[in-house]
Amino acid sequence: MNIDMIRAAAIRLQGHAVRTPLLYAPFLDKLAGRRVWVKPECLQHTGSFKFRGAYSALSALDPTQRSKGVIAFSSGNHAQGVALAARMHDTSAVIIMPSDAPRLKIDNTAAYGAEVVLYDRDTESRDEIGARLSAERGLTLVKPFDEPLVVAGQGTCGLEIAEDANMRGIENADVIVCCGGGGLTSGIALALEVDAPTLRVRPAEPEGFDDVTRSLHSGQIERNARTSGNICDAIITQQPGDLTWPIMQRLCGPGLVISEDEALGAMAQAFLQLKLVAEPGGAAALAAAFYRRDEIAGDDVIVTISGGNVDPAMFARALNTI
Amino acid sequence: MNIDMIRAAAIRLQGHAVRTPLLYAPFLDKLAGRRVWVKPECLQHTGSFKFRGAYSALSALDPTQRSKGVIAFSSGNHAQGVALAARMHDTSAVIIMPSDAPRLKIDNTAAYGAEVVLYDRDTESRDEIGARLSAERGLTLVKPFDEPLVVAGQGTCGLEIAEDANMRGIENADVIVCCGGGGLTSGIALALEVDAPTLRVRPAEPEGFDDVTRSLHSGQIERNARTSGNICDAIITQQPGDLTWPIMQRLCGPGLVISEDEALGAMAQAFLQLKLVAEPGGAAALAAAFYRRDEIAGDDVIVTISGGNVDPAMFARALNTI
Repeated sequence: MNIDMIRAAAIRLQGHAVRTPLLYAPFLDKLAGRRVWVKPECLQHTGSFKFRGAYSALSALDPTQRSKGVIAFSSGNHAQGVALAARMHDTSAVIIMPSDAPRLKIDNTAAYGAEVVLYDRDTESRDEIGARLSAERGLTLVKPFDEPLVVAGQGTCGLEIAEDANMRGIENADVIVCCGGGGLTSGIALALEVDAPTLRVRPAEPEGFDDVTRSLHSGQIERNARTSGNICDAIITQQPGDLTWPIMQRLCGPGLVISEDEALGAMAQAFLQLKLVAEPGGAAALAAAFYRRDEIAGDDVIVTISGGNVDPAMFARALNTI
Repeated sequence: MNIDMIRAAAIRLQGHAVRTPLLYAPFLDKLAGRRVWVKPECLQHTGSFKFRGAYSALSALDPTQRSKGVIAFSSGNHAQGVALAARMHDTSAVIIMPSDAPRLKIDNTAAYGAEVVLYDRDTESRDEIGARLSAERGLTLVKPFDEPLVVAGQGTCGLEIAEDANMRGIENADVIVCCGGGGLTSGIALALEVDAPTLRVRPAEPEGFDDVTRSLHSGQIERNARTSGNICDAIITQQPGDLTWPIMQRLCGPGLVISEDEALGAMAQAFLQLKLVAEPGGAAALAAAFYRRDEIAGDDVIVTISGGNVDPAMFARALNTI
């Protein structure tokens, strides 16, 4: 896993993924105590950065293998990314989703043309369902983060951050990344290590699901007690990945942990000042910039808004905090 | 007024304005009956394209004159654009705003450092207030649209549309522009005339305030009976400008007229599919692409989302249409 794989993914994604800008909104500076730059991956195809990794993986598959179809497990954003990437490669996708995933994410995954298979988190094993379907049809599994081609795709986001930060002369900055299994976090960290080595990556996680933060603190992989039950559903995983953890351990600064209310508050600010729709998990990094400012050292902060797939009712909750 | 002035403005704006992307969301195609591309000027500094024209005007002023300060009349978006452009040039701005302008726009204008002077639309003359302040302090008036330097600034949006459309091979497309006095519409039309001559500009306006549409139809300047009383406040003016009208008459196709409900519906789609916050007037072009599709001929449609400065309560109204 190295930057050459990320650069190769960037070439495959060229013209297919959105080259997102780096935005600056001066009103946010007061809340963060420093200049705030925003990488709006909610503007990426399917409304999250996950499209990058999915397209990277699909585009690198052997065409014969790819033509048999792919399969993925996801509560939503990886699901949509794989579904659209499959459609763009004229192949089929089976997506296994928990039945309590946000409605918008289930509907969109189906609308991108994927076959959605719902399972009950409490009574069914998604792995058994997946194994059976894969064996029957010869499907290729696209993992959400613990897969080099996926991390390489997410890392293209880091190449763009480095390019824009260098162009603007941003040097002493913390780059806060909304972190689940660590695919985006480790991909960005690998890209910045080479292309913008003065920037420090900091994972942002929700309270109670801060496995990466605790792992970075203890020096070994820590697990979450639960894997659901937080509005930041997009960035909840059991534990850091076997592939992503050593990268994060080597390259990341301490994690930043935010509450659900802080995620909603950051969504409201993204609405007011950035004109962007962020989902709760996608607003975790912005929330950390505002509410954990004393734990941040850089002159500038760069935050990812990693996704915007949020139901209207949840968005209304964020608006009500204003 | 020609493209050389727009190219000169683009050089002045480089590194100061946001170079907005051209976004594509496949789900919108079904609603529009063709491919839909979106130019998100809500991501521009101050949340609307108006910053381009304001910065263009301020940056071209004689420095001694500029140092005395500027003045503008605006219900909101031009106000914010001039306020921030003035701050970026280390000078002062007086903005004369109607007391019934959206609260967010008044607050933001003040927060950008401008001196906001509110007046009552029914009982006070904004022109008298402005003339008195200008005479007392030697302020330079920055007009909202009928000023070549402002149109040149708005035209930089057209240069970017042309660049991205050409890169993507978009040829037979209608470019729908949210239209008030015609500054953005005429600026984009002038840019496309040279850089993407197969694209056709179409103004989009709210019902009851369709002065440009009626003017294009009759071949002479038509006036609106009212100048307030529609949620699309950002794109309501009495009539097309003396500068902008001949340009629109020469270069624009027929106007497209949308209702308030259609503007709210387009805001909801921008939320769902684009993850963008559009204000009602800023969603007029997207609404035209959906609801006036039978009046559009192009294989593709490119729509501006001209602004995103909307109060939470109005945005909640749009969410309630979902």
